[in-house]
Parts: sequence; C-alpha cells; structure tokens
Amino acid sequence: MTDIDLNCDMGESFGAWRMGDDAGVMPWISSANIACGFHAGDFSTMRQTVLLAKAHGVAIGAHVSLPDLQGFGRRAMKVPPDEAYALTLYQIGALAAFARAADMRIAHVKPHGALYNMAAKDAALANAIARAVRDFDAQIVLVGLAGSELPRAGEALGLRVAHEAFADRCYEADGSLTPRGTQGAVIEDADAAVAQAVKIAAQGKVDIRSSGALALRADTICVHGDRPDAALFARRLHEGLAAAGVTVAKPVG
Amino acid sequence: MTDIDLNCDMGESFGAWRMGDDAGVMPWISSANIACGFHAGDFSTMRQTVLLAKAHGVAIGAHVSLPDLQGFGRRAMKVPPDEAYALTLYQIGALAAFARAADMRIAHVKPHGALYNMAAKDAALANAIARAVRDFDAQIVLVGLAGSELPRAGEALGLRVAHEAFADRCYEADGSLTPRGTQGAVIEDADAAVAQAVKIAAQGKVDIRSSGALALRADTICVHGDRPDAALFARRLHEGLAAAGVTVAKPVG
Amino acid sequence: MTDIDLNCDMGESFGAWRMGDDAGVMPWISSANIACGFHAGDFSTMRQTVLLAKAHGVAIGAHVSLPDLQGFGRRAMKVPPDEAYALTLYQIGALAAFARAADMRIAHVKPHGALYNMAAKDAALANAIARAVRDFDAQIVLVGLAGSELPRAGEALGLRVAHEAFADRCYEADGSLTPRGTQGAVIEDADAAVAQAVKIAAQGKVDIRSSGALALRADTICVHGDRPDAALFARRLHEGLAAAGVTVAKPVG
Amino acid sequence: MTDIDLNCDMGESFGAWRMGDDAGVMPWISSANIACGFHAGDFSTMRQTVLLAKAHGVAIGAHVSLPDLQGFGRRAMKVPPDEAYALTLYQIGALAAFARAADMRIAHVKPHGALYNMAAKDAALANAIARAVRDFDAQIVLVGLAGSELPRAGEALGLRVAHEAFADRCYEADGSLTPRGTQGAVIEDADAAVAQAVKIAAQGKVDIRSSGALALRADTICVHGDRPDAALFARRLHEGLAAAGVTVAKPVG
Repeated sequence: MTDIDLNCDMGESFGAWRMGDDAGVMPWISSANIACGFHAGDFSTMRQTVLLAKAHGVAIGAHVSLPDLQGFGRRAMKVPPDEAYALTLYQIGALAAFARAADMRIAHVKPHGALYNMAAKDAALANAIARAVRDFDAQIVLVGLAGSELPRAGEALGLRVAHEAFADRCYEADGSLTPRGTQGAVIEDADAAVAQAVKIAAQGKVDIRSSGALALRADTICVHGDRPDAALFARRLHEGLAAAGVTVAKPVG
Repeated sequence: MTDIDLNCDMGESFGAWRMGDDAGVMPWISSANIACGFHAGDFSTMRQTVLLAKAHGVAIGAHVSLPDLQGFGRRAMKVPPDEAYALTLYQIGALAAFARAADMRIAHVKPHGALYNMAAKDAALANAIARAVRDFDAQIVLVGLAGSELPRAGEALGLRVAHEAFADRCYEADGSLTPRGTQGAVIEDADAAVAQAVKIAAQGKVDIRSSGALALRADTICVHGDRPDAALFARRLHEGLAAAGVTVAKPVG
Repeated sequence: MTDIDLNCDMGESFGAWRMGDDAGVMPWISSANIACGFHAGDFSTMRQTVLLAKAHGVAIGAHVSLPDLQGFGRRAMKVPPDEAYALTLYQIGALAAFARAADMRIAHVKPHGALYNMAAKDAALANAIARAVRDFDAQIVLVGLAGSELPRAGEALGLRVAHEAFADRCYEADGSLTPRGTQGAVIEDADAAVAQAVKIAAQGKVDIRSSGALALRADTICVHGDRPDAALFARRLHEGLAAAGVTVAKPVG
Repeated sequence: MTDIDLNCDMGESFGAWRMGDDAGVMPWISSANIACGFHAGDFSTMRQTVLLAKAHGVAIGAHVSLPDLQGFGRRAMKVPPDEAYALTLYQIGALAAFARAADMRIAHVKPHGALYNMAAKDAALANAIARAVRDFDAQIVLVGLAGSELPRAGEALGLRVAHEAFADRCYEADGSLTPRGTQGAVIEDADAAVAQAVKIAAQGKVDIRSSGALALRADTICVHGDRPDAALFARRLHEGLAAAGVTVAKPVG
C-alpha cells in the first residue's frame, strides 16, 4: 500500500476578487498551500481558508511568496537571502496565527511562483528559506521541486522535506519541468494527467518529453487549482490514485 | 516603591526610509511597540527591531495598524469588526514569528494610530481586537487608552490589560486627550512632560487643561519616538521617574 | 427625442484577478468609468480597457478612488481635501496618458465607491475633487450623485456636470439612495430596473420607496457591472430606453 | 561656451517618511527627476515637488520605476516589454497631471534604479520605454546611461535623448559604471567628483578605474540626492562647472 500527498494552492482570492474553487477542491486533497498576503490572500481570506481546511481535515501550509500582488508572485525579483529569510518568516507567522486561533498547526511551507522556481536553482536562496522554516518550527515539512536545491537545503538543515511532482506538467530528461510555452508543457487532458500521477505515485517514474521514463521520487503531487475544471480534476486524481491502490494522505513525520 | 512601564513605538522605518532613533531610545524603555508592516515596518526592519529589543532586555509587542502605508495608519478607515479581528491576528502572528526565531515572546499588543483612537471609543471594534489577542495567546497584555473601551473589552474577555497614559499630551476633564490642533495639546517642554509622567506614575493623577487634576490609572506611559529629541527625552523620563522612586519595568502578569 | 448617457464601471480586473464582463457590456453603454489603479485596474488593464472603449466608440472617464486595493475603494477613509485633490489629479493623469496614446480624451471623471458617497455629502471634499478636474481640463464632465454636493461643487467652479441616477437602486423621498442592507434597496428584477431607467430618462421622475414619485434630473444612468447578468442587463436597458424613444448617447458640452 | 544639464532625483519622500533635501538641492540643478509613486513619491509629494521645481525654474521629468515601494525600485524584476510600456505611460501621465495643474510640461523621462540598469542593457525593454515616451509626447527627452541601449532605442524612434554621466561614480574601460561594492566605485570625495564632472562637461572625457581616460558624450550629469551633503555637493558642482566656463542649463531640443 502506497501513500501520496495531494496538495493544492488555496486562498488566492484578494479583497473583492475571487480566484479558484476552494470549496470544490478541498474534499479531494490532503494539503492546502494557503496564500499569505504577498501574492494573494488578504487576512480575511486567510482566516476563512484555514477554517475551510479544518472542516475537511486537510493539512495547511504557508504558500510564501515574493511581495508582488500585482504580478501574483510570478515575476522573478532579485532578493538577497536575508530578505528571503525575513519574508518567509513573516508569512509563516501570519498564517500560524490563524492556525493557532483555529487550534491547528502549520504542517508545511511551500514557496510560490517565482520564489519556488528561484529556490529550486539558487542554493543560497533555498538555504535562507529553509532556515526561516527551521527557526520557526523544525517540525514543519519543506516542500520543493523534486530533486532541486530547495529540498536539498531543507535536508541539510535537518528538516523533513517533501519532493513535489506535477500531474499535469511534462518532464524533461534531467527531471526539470518542460518550460511553459514549449509545445506539450502542460498536460491538458485530464486522463493523461491522472495516469501520470498514478505512475509517479505507484511506480516512482514519470515519462519524459523526448521518450522513455525517468525515476522520480515524489512525496506530494500538486493539483493546479487554476484549471477551469479544478474541482473535477482533483476528484479524478483522488479516485484514480485510489483505484491504483494509492492512498491520498498528508505527509507524516 | 512604584513600577511603571515605559513604552515606545519602534521599527517604523520602511524599505529605504528611516524613521525614529530606535537605538537611542531602546536603552531607556521597558516595552517596544513594533510596527508589523501595515503602517510601517517591513519584514527586515521587524527582524532587526526584535533583535535590538532583545539586546536591551526590552519586552516586545505588536503595534497593529489599519492597512495604510501611505497614511502611516493615521487615517480613520471604516473596517467591520471581522476585518479588525483578522488584521490584528495577522500582524500579531507575523511579529510572533520573528520573536520565536529570537527565542522571545510577544508580551503585549497595542493598536496604532487611527485604530488606537477608534478602538478607544468603539466597543465592537475593541472587542474584535481583544478577541484576536485572546485567540492568539491569552497571556498577552492588551494596551489601550486609559479608561477607554479597549482595556474594558480586554478585561471583559479575561485578558490582562495595560491602561496607557501620555507624558507629553494634555488631558481634558473627562480623561480624554486634548485633540491635536488645540492650543497646548502637545507638551513640547521636556521638563513639563517629565513632571507629568512622574505625577501620573507616583500619584495616579494628571493635571487637566482647564484647571485642577484628575485621577488616572496608568500601567504604562508612552514615549513618543517621533520627537526630534526622542532618545534624550526617553532618558530624561527614565531618570526623572527613577529620581521620584518609580522603577521603569515591563508590566507583569 | 430624449438622450441619456449609460455609464458602467470598467477595467476592474487587477493583475491575475478578473472582474466584470467588459467586452459584453461595452456595446451597450456610452460612457466607461475606468479604474485607475487605486481600487482596481493595474496599468496593463487600464491600457486594454481604453482600447476596448475606443473600439466601441465609448467615451472614457477616470473612475477615481481612495487608495485601497484590498477594500476595493469601498471603505470610507478620512482624507483631507488637499489629499483628495492630489489623488484625483494623479489618477486622471494616469488614465489620460493611455487616452493620449490611443488618440482619445478623458470625457468625464466619476469618483468611485466610498469617495463617491463621501463627495455626495461633504462640500469641502467635493470642491477638492472638482478643482482637480478643472485644473486638469475644464472641459471634462464631473459625474456625481444627482442633486448632491459633488455636481454642486462642479457647477460652482464652472464645470459641466452630469447628475447620475441608478436603474437598479431604490430611492428615498429626499432623493437619496435607500441604503444597501435595507429591504428592497437593490432592484434585482431586470424588468423593474429597466422600467425605472425609462421613467427617469423619459419623464424625469423616479418612484420612491414609501410611495409616490420624485422629480429627478438625471444626465447619466449607471449600469452596475457587477451583476452576474451585467451584459444582458446593459443590453436590455439600452433596448428598453430605445423602445421608449430615448437615445443612449454620451453627454455633450 | 559649453552647456551641461545637472539632474537630481527629487520627491522621494513617501507618506510620513522624508528623504533627501529637495529644497537645498533645487537651486543648483537644471532638471528634477520626480518620483511617480512606484518606488517613492506619493501624490501629495509629487504635487509639492512640481511646485518646488517651478519656483526654481527647474525642468521636471518623470522618474519612472518598477512597482516596488519596499525595495525602492532597486530590485531587478522580470517585466515583459508590454508591462514596461504600460507602467512607463502610467507614471508619465500621473506626473503630467501635476505639471498641467502648475502650467508646466514634462521635459524628460528617466527610468529609476533597477529599471534604469535593465534598460541600459535590454534592447526590448529600452524600446518599450521609448515607445511609451513617444506615444505620450514625442517632444520629451529620454534620459539614459551614456552610450547604452536606452538612448539608442530613443534615437531609433526619433526621440531626443540625453546621455547621462555621473560625477561621483567610477568608470570602467568599456564606459560602464564600476559596480557598487567594488573598491572605489563611488567617488566619496567631493573635490574629485567635481573635477570629474568638469572633465566630462568641458572635455568630453572621463578617467577610468584602471588608468587612462575614455571619450564620453554626456548631455546631463547626475547629482546623487542621497549623499548626506547633497545640497552642498550640488552647489559645488554648479560652481565648479561655472568656474570652468560650463553653464548649467536644461537640455534643449
């Protein structure tokens, strides 16, 4: 019997603007990455998202971002490690307050958008983020791109880490994601995406773009919440994994 | 022997902009109200301010504000209690993360600027802020204008509260502060301000604008950090109180 | 033959967040109130919205707001007249740059949300906004609540003003809008709203909540773009007015 | 008789935070680069700065920046050309409104901080900024690093450009600035900086770090307003240039 965590970005509304179908996706996942106000997720949205996750028994994590509301945290921005440390700590703390008021704990931290991509490649940045997590609570799981600098930095500091894979993104031979913009980078077809998730979870392998497959250790699989069919897709992922004998469950220590 | 807490707003720089003389004031106070990013105090400033307070053995508190960087949190803004609850919790949490990384705890929470004034008069708002404090940590001391709705709301929820008085603000017969703009509202003369602080701390009384004096319970006295002579003024307050047999010490539970 | 202007709030998306059905509503209106970045409408959205209005021959106006992205400009905020003057000028200028690059001109200025409501009642604030409009371009039409302080302030400065009425808001006997939250404040039924618009435009009258009707001068009628059926509602308003012999046309000098 | 423009960054205060000595520097310069709200310079500050420049007969320009208040526009941020076009237009327009209300015109546009450095090297970004300037007003002078992509892009679109040199920054053999952080990158000594400015303005040459000198076309020289002695330094530059027979005057068409 195999376990896998299903995580999804949540709480990405801001003020009067809605985004995502949090209520529709929440029943099918095991971990919610909650925006902390820097790319999305004002304080009222954060509170409601924590309570929604609690109602569904879903683990919560801080989805920490560069400070860039207008760019939704997707614009690469040059921040020195000291600032990355401080902005990570700030956002973890902000979410932790809502967790505490709801008698919950932060289970994981996952950088968002440009910070995620930068931390996958930049060891100093990855280390800064990992230090912030450790200095807040060394029991928190650090989530990063499978095989990248971020889980490496976490492990070097003694943190538990979760290597993340994607159901609906194509992989290159070196284990990196096929860049958006390249033909086939996003796997639009839900059946194919579910099949990829099952292969990753059950066999520890993923097909690569050119041909053949790659061994890929994955502890958690990301469900993209910005697909138009996000709730249905999450459900099919959940059910497809179950049918293949894989249990969706939050990562344990 | 009497004790009084001396508190000062700290960490009000933001990005490239400097404000206040934190290093000069810190040695003379017992409690630092640290800006949490909503009216001032970016995440890097918060971190440094926590470390500065620790180095001086000064207790730290969250100086929570309306979300208004450009107005420095001084513009009254209509926020429903639910939002006030959430924004208070968010800011406490953000500061608490830096405290935790420095092996400190948040000792108090004090609303800033317009939120402070609104919470002094609006019972529903005061209750929302007090609930946020209690839901985060019921050991935290809630600081508000002496005799106002905010300490009342805190006490009603079982919180420890600190009634705050001002060394350099003139009082009206009803215990309210003489509004800024009125002749004599701010006591510019440092000697007179020190004398007022001593009278408050040692005798529990304050002179009022018209004539006569008023009984005033005060647990903490605010040192304004935006005076040009803030560090010197803090020192004279500290020494003036000591000379009158009053010890400057953080409020205890 | 009567003319009436139909105006609608446009360009209220921000960064990754979408709001409204601008492309669906634009064909049916004569004036677009374009958000200028303070409550919504980042610079890229502003540019696109100006070009969309141009493509439909719709006049453009600056929808100026208090600086409050998170509150969508709906939170009352205390700003002195000098600041209101400067923020109005700033936003007009920002939109005018996109207009100029598209060979268009700003036809009108309409305050948004809380600023609209405040300027309807506060003569000093209304005057500050009107001065900013005049100092930028005295040919611009100032739009405000029919019969309120804002058109009054505009007229006092020699500006052309447009008194605004609402198709889907209920009126009180004194000409004010029934406050949201009161039973019947918003006219949900599209037929009833169209009928109210026709009565206002063709007869210069509007029914009031208690009973009877009120004389109401209106130069422009607001189509709410945040109704779920906004595009269809705009079309029905347009067609209902046409059927009653009222031409939808931008206000002229 | 030679002319040179002296430009300085102005209006970099924000809300309650002060920066620079605008009143002290303004008498000695010919062009003021005014912050437009993206890295500094709220709307009230912009208005006051325009009026201050007018009082001293100083030409005004838009100091356009990446949207990054906390980073003061100094953090490189990945923005596609379309966004750079729109953010440039937005900021020019905002400043132009204050200019118009003061019966002035925008004389020049100069990117700030990270945008300045990026536009010196990235031809597509430089072109986007130049197009925004041209689409607003083809009479505006575009200011950029001497010999870099930005003036090149401006000239390619038929704009007048100003090549900018620095009195107090050291140069490399290829005409680039010695990177901050390198020993000697900033010329702290005011006499040496004045001498460099005179050499640039009078002889069209600048000494380079290694040894020898370089031919350098410069139409404008930047006075750093963030030096502690900015006003005195501006005065000495002005007087040093005059003593060498160089007139400080805004660039003409």
